[in-house]
Amino acid sequence: MQTVATIFPARFTGPTVAELGEKAVIREIVAQAPSEFNGDDAAVLFNAPPNSRTVVTTDMAVEGRHFRLEWSTPEEIGGKAIIQNFADVEAMGARPVAAVLAVAAPTNTPVSFLRALAHGIGERVVEFSADLVGGDIVAGEQLTVSVTAIGSLGGSLPPLTLDAARPGQQLVAAGRIGHSAAGLALLEHYGREVPEGLEVLRDAHTSPRIDPTRGMIARSTGATAATDNSDGLIVDLTTLAAASGVTIDLDRDAIAPDADMIRAGELTGTDPWEWVLAGGEDHTILATTAGPAPSGFRVIGRVAKGSGVTVGGERPAHSGGWVSF
Amino acid sequence: MQTVATIFPARFTGPTVAELGEKAVIREIVAQAPSEFNGDDAAVLFNAPPNSRTVVTTDMAVEGRHFRLEWSTPEEIGGKAIIQNFADVEAMGARPVAAVLAVAAPTNTPVSFLRALAHGIGERVVEFSADLVGGDIVAGEQLTVSVTAIGSLGGSLPPLTLDAARPGQQLVAAGRIGHSAAGLALLEHYGREVPEGLEVLRDAHTSPRIDPTRGMIARSTGATAATDNSDGLIVDLTTLAAASGVTIDLDRDAIAPDADMIRAGELTGTDPWEWVLAGGEDHTILATTAGPAPSGFRVIGRVAKGSGVTVGGERPAHSGGWVSF
Repeated sequence: MQTVATIFPARFTGPTVAELGEKAVIREIVAQAPSEFNGDDAAVLFNAPPNSRTVVTTDMAVEGRHFRLEWSTPEEIGGKAIIQNFADVEAMGARPVAAVLAVAAPTNTPVSFLRALAHGIGERVVEFSADLVGGDIVAGEQLTVSVTAIGSLGGSLPPLTLDAARPGQQLVAAGRIGHSAAGLALLEHYGREVPEGLEVLRDAHTSPRIDPTRGMIARSTGATAATDNSDGLIVDLTTLAAASGVTIDLDRDAIAPDADMIRAGELTGTDPWEWVLAGGEDHTILATTAGPAPSGFRVIGRVAKGSGVTVGGERPAHSGGWVSF
Repeated sequence: MQTVATIFPARFTGPTVAELGEKAVIREIVAQAPSEFNGDDAAVLFNAPPNSRTVVTTDMAVEGRHFRLEWSTPEEIGGKAIIQNFADVEAMGARPVAAVLAVAAPTNTPVSFLRALAHGIGERVVEFSADLVGGDIVAGEQLTVSVTAIGSLGGSLPPLTLDAARPGQQLVAAGRIGHSAAGLALLEHYGREVPEGLEVLRDAHTSPRIDPTRGMIARSTGATAATDNSDGLIVDLTTLAAASGVTIDLDRDAIAPDADMIRAGELTGTDPWEWVLAGGEDHTILATTAGPAPSGFRVIGRVAKGSGVTVGGERPAHSGGWVSF
């Protein structure tokens, strides 16, 4: 096995994980995201009320593939791993309650780097009143971060599933669409020092946020189907439309690139519609509902009989998305 | 980023993950361990009965560090990832109900290899009446397998925790101790073709098994504390003894190496007591109880006032264990 050299930013000084050892490293991580549930063979989470169901999802991120140390701080890497998973929980209409973290780290990883990563996780889980309840840290050639999120689905309403969109419903969205992809394009073009005023796009990529409880609110106010914009708007909605046996028509004006995206498009020589339609990684909650847009959501399209996804009744100009391999 | 070349065994022919693409690879994996819970943003697991608590734990395994492709089949790698996690759930006195799988795979990974890995997972989860309910597959330089297990802790009894051993209790064990480390020594010495009759030791390392429900049975018959033999018998029991504020004295005869281990020790020039005391990875459930040994358990020691772990009243000859970094 060859050694892949990972270059950690110079500001992460102090002992490496190999110098400090596993137990001390775990203590450092737990201190950044403390939880009374932590510290045994497994974490015992909660006494579930009647009708409560447990929800689980997992995501893995690999250095050089899903994040780069020259573009993202460890706080951002940790925070994004949480948001990716919690968005999947919210997209079921459930409440994220816990996360576990597995990290493969090169032996030369500074402990201060992992502490910062755990700090970023702690900041995000607290926003959701959730806990980091356990984990595993192992040696690996390539920095790899795997988070599994546990959610609680209360009440008697069904979860928000991909197969439950119905003709006549509106498609609603809570959050930005295309900002993450615009930010990635700026990072590729400029590195972390993007043109003034466009940091919001960079940060949308390196540090996405979602508004906690939007999934629960959508579910409690009549939404039936939901997903999040993770692989690309058209790709993700095509999956939902196919599972539900419907067509979705997006409102061109409602998803049009904003002024920041238009400027970023000019600077990088990209059609900003590509970011909107094929971008992904915004983790914006997309739901279908027969009622008005729930609090925090706006209408961006309509569900009808048929199949596939259109924009203003036409085939989308960009329909690609994230490709894992 | 340099490319780390992973050599897959020649029998795994057919398309690679890069050739087949993510969606088709996921279908192949799901077919090997099918579950009705799979296929949405997150998996909705179950309606928890009153008093039920959810338990969660995670483990990560990296090629070259935790397993080697020349020693372990993909079926064994997948199965071992399940057992490592389910043993942690059992060690809480809970029932494993679900697992999620995250895999980082080099782009040249044959799909047939991942299918075999998923098949090994499917074989193990079925033994526990559990399901593989979701996952993530991403590209990475180094094959990395991360499993998170979800368990259900029913009834009103507390979980089996590290801090609940009490003086006067017996220490009981369900399963072999030291076999996995003996098998690892044989693999290092001979490769996969170990001397005839000692395959049982090799398989204990590459394909550990635990007897489902032993944790629940221990908890329902009066055990209060438990852990599993994962990092090393002395290391794991020292953690339990320290958390509980007690000492544990092991019965030398009850844990003595068996004939297979003595033979493997002679062949490899190793004191088999090292495997017993420092070996780990057997995932044998170790519990403390004031009552008689529960069904499937045998008595291997006693809990008393004091601190630390002894063997027949003396300091153990070997007290090391697994070192992550």
